[in-house]
Amino acid sequence: MTLPVLTSIIYRERAGRYFFAVEILALVIGHVMTKFPPKKDRFYAREGFVTVALGWIAMSILGALPLSLCGEIPKYIDALFEVVSGFTTTGASICPDVEALSHCVNLWRCFTHWLGGMGVLVFVLAILPLAGGGQNMRLMKAESPGPSVSKLVPKLRTTALYLYGIYMFLTVLMFVLLVLAKMPVFDSICTAIGTAGTGGYGIKGDSMGSYSPLIQNIVTLFMFLFGVNFNFYFLVLFKRVREAFSIEEVRWYFLIYIGVAIVIAINLTIIGGNFFYNFHHSLFQCASVMTTTGFSTVDFDRWPELSKMLMLGLMFVGACAGSTGGGMKVSRFIIYFRTAKKELSCLIHPRSVKIVQMDGKKIEHEVVRSANIFLICYVLIFACSLLVVSLENYDFTTNFTAVAATFNNIGPGLSMVGPTQNFAFWNPLSKLTLIFDMLAGRLEIFPMLILFSPSTWKK
Amino acid sequence: MTLPVLTSIIYRERAGRYFFAVEILALVIGHVMTKFPPKKDRFYAREGFVTVALGWIAMSILGALPLSLCGEIPKYIDALFEVVSGFTTTGASICPDVEALSHCVNLWRCFTHWLGGMGVLVFVLAILPLAGGGQNMRLMKAESPGPSVSKLVPKLRTTALYLYGIYMFLTVLMFVLLVLAKMPVFDSICTAIGTAGTGGYGIKGDSMGSYSPLIQNIVTLFMFLFGVNFNFYFLVLFKRVREAFSIEEVRWYFLIYIGVAIVIAINLTIIGGNFFYNFHHSLFQCASVMTTTGFSTVDFDRWPELSKMLMLGLMFVGACAGSTGGGMKVSRFIIYFRTAKKELSCLIHPRSVKIVQMDGKKIEHEVVRSANIFLICYVLIFACSLLVVSLENYDFTTNFTAVAATFNNIGPGLSMVGPTQNFAFWNPLSKLTLIFDMLAGRLEIFPMLILFSPSTWKK
Repeated sequence: MTLPVLTSIIYRERAGRYFFAVEILALVIGHVMTKFPPKKDRFYAREGFVTVALGWIAMSILGALPLSLCGEIPKYIDALFEVVSGFTTTGASICPDVEALSHCVNLWRCFTHWLGGMGVLVFVLAILPLAGGGQNMRLMKAESPGPSVSKLVPKLRTTALYLYGIYMFLTVLMFVLLVLAKMPVFDSICTAIGTAGTGGYGIKGDSMGSYSPLIQNIVTLFMFLFGVNFNFYFLVLFKRVREAFSIEEVRWYFLIYIGVAIVIAINLTIIGGNFFYNFHHSLFQCASVMTTTGFSTVDFDRWPELSKMLMLGLMFVGACAGSTGGGMKVSRFIIYFRTAKKELSCLIHPRSVKIVQMDGKKIEHEVVRSANIFLICYVLIFACSLLVVSLENYDFTTNFTAVAATFNNIGPGLSMVGPTQNFAFWNPLSKLTLIFDMLAGRLEIFPMLILFSPSTWKK
Repeated sequence: MTLPVLTSIIYRERAGRYFFAVEILALVIGHVMTKFPPKKDRFYAREGFVTVALGWIAMSILGALPLSLCGEIPKYIDALFEVVSGFTTTGASICPDVEALSHCVNLWRCFTHWLGGMGVLVFVLAILPLAGGGQNMRLMKAESPGPSVSKLVPKLRTTALYLYGIYMFLTVLMFVLLVLAKMPVFDSICTAIGTAGTGGYGIKGDSMGSYSPLIQNIVTLFMFLFGVNFNFYFLVLFKRVREAFSIEEVRWYFLIYIGVAIVIAINLTIIGGNFFYNFHHSLFQCASVMTTTGFSTVDFDRWPELSKMLMLGLMFVGACAGSTGGGMKVSRFIIYFRTAKKELSCLIHPRSVKIVQMDGKKIEHEVVRSANIFLICYVLIFACSLLVVSLENYDFTTNFTAVAATFNNIGPGLSMVGPTQNFAFWNPLSKLTLIFDMLAGRLEIFPMLILFSPSTWKK
């Protein structure tokens, strides 16, 4: 919270003092907690998952305090929604007018994206395999079935440092390019850190709509880059470029992205307008939704139905595993497709023996099982959330896409939660449900389920 | 087609001659085909699946001919949609005014439900385990994980005869009760055979809305009964009543049904009206949608959003495996829930060994895998269908529920495909997609996928 405090000093804003107060509070709480070390010093999977889930919740509860105290987001539940949306890199906002917020609040909103993205990267790529032996290794494998990071850099700390380095480098590079493209410095900082986390909080009412096409193209490029599996950058860093470009997930990620963007551009051109103009916006929106960032240059809620459905499809597919993006991940879809294909061919040729491969290696049975359980939990949580939010009697499109946009950590949905709308109108129950969805989606479901599972708390 | 011919004689309708002509045509084609026995006399899973899929398609192509020839459904694609919707016991109609149809056409529409239901029963409970050894046995297990039919009655023919007997008995019983409740005889026949197949073609413009509450209650009861796993009736027939009532799928089927009906009744009463009046209609609609029949007494598209979402949920859950109902089946959901629970508890307590049980027996790994593959294929086909129908640019609710209502073999959806609407407005491409969905949903997906899989046709 030092950053918003500094910002408030530069812009002489009152809100900064609340950030400072909460920063002190957080320091005190943290200091007191280190005085009570756990009695058990053994750390299993259960403790790992619960720690991660509680950590994110505690971070959100504290992070929401200054927004609420300074009065710019009066209701605490709204502030909590906003900050969870930030940390989970969702970008769904309850602010009807973001331009009315002070600079330090806007910076904090975007900075939560950057912190959240960093946390997720380390959680998925570096922490998970250590947390508790066998089970988590399997989870880790399901997450990033590409070349394993741990084999490239043996030590966890080194791995994390490399990740931070790449993340930081890309963020700074984007910031520099944005400034060179004549975006104001403050806007460039917020946009760069918001894009890095694939978050998507805009600091303008029309998100990215009013910036120049050059700036929009830079944002498009970096949204895409932050959705790439970070193993790719690791390999490039270690000069194994050929291997990097042969990661199947990255290839499919690129193909799906370009394919859908072209179809949408054609679909839009049939309705009207110039193909290249439409392609420019379709490239931006597809990158924004597929990487689950959530910026917008146009109101895609007014696009034809096919384009809207393709966008909805991208929301579920999501970015690469091992990136800061959300959604179900391209690699899971590769696993689903190949498993289904293999099973069908087993039905046709019962005596043939087939294995499911990715990147030339056999996908372990455990990985497939983990991906299947993910799908089951995903569908069940989705259905339950839809039921709870439908209590409010809004239309089906609003309810369905609100759950889709939060659970996949995107931000905007369609209809009443479209790109030009916000999430302020939901009642507290719906907001809590969507907060749960954001956290569950961000932490790959299992940590949140384990946190709320009664058997976790039994001796 | 003898039945509609006889009906046309009673009511002196011209349309009957076309049924007679097609009947002769079918006889000739069938006779000619028996002259060309297959060169291979071995029958594997592949041949079994392809035969089933092609059989249903051939049956539909012929069954649609008289409707189109007699001019009551002028376009052949509409007639095909109507008959596929009939055979697959969906009940989604393209007729804007069913009361204008002749008696023999209406009887044929309802009779296709009855034939389809019978076919599915035998397909799922009796044919599948025989068709091709190992693989199908697994499929069969996934379908009816209750007490196995084949152990009760060793021989397939006997099993099929018992199934036909129970099916026939329940149909006749329903017919008698309807006549006793003063429903006209023709209406009683059509309603009884339409309910038996969990089809849902109404012969009145308002479906079941204008009949007396007593008649509606009889229909409610029998819709529920035809959604019960037929293993239940087998066990009752063999005087193993205690075992019958302990089938977990039947118990959950009942609990979900009653639970949702009560919640909807409360939801409706909050908006207005008497609880018992609302409960009457909610019991009817829940039975209609959960068993995927599709009759209606009220326009549930005008219900509050929570009730609509619960109905949508029931559409996906569907009836019991081993019944004439469609959807994903209660037993699959039991498997999904228990597998997810088991995996979570494995994450929490990595050293504990847990097994997934149903009816006191371990669910085989193959059954779980088959259910998972089903879910993957289900989601993928659903998404693709949604994309294709969204080409027409209708609203999301219409597109989503049109796919849900056909893929789960229900009939009515929401919005433009709601209970008071019909499917006539779709263009031929969408109709073909929905026809595919109806067949795929009815045949538990795999036969249709195998039919269209290129490797099926390789030597």
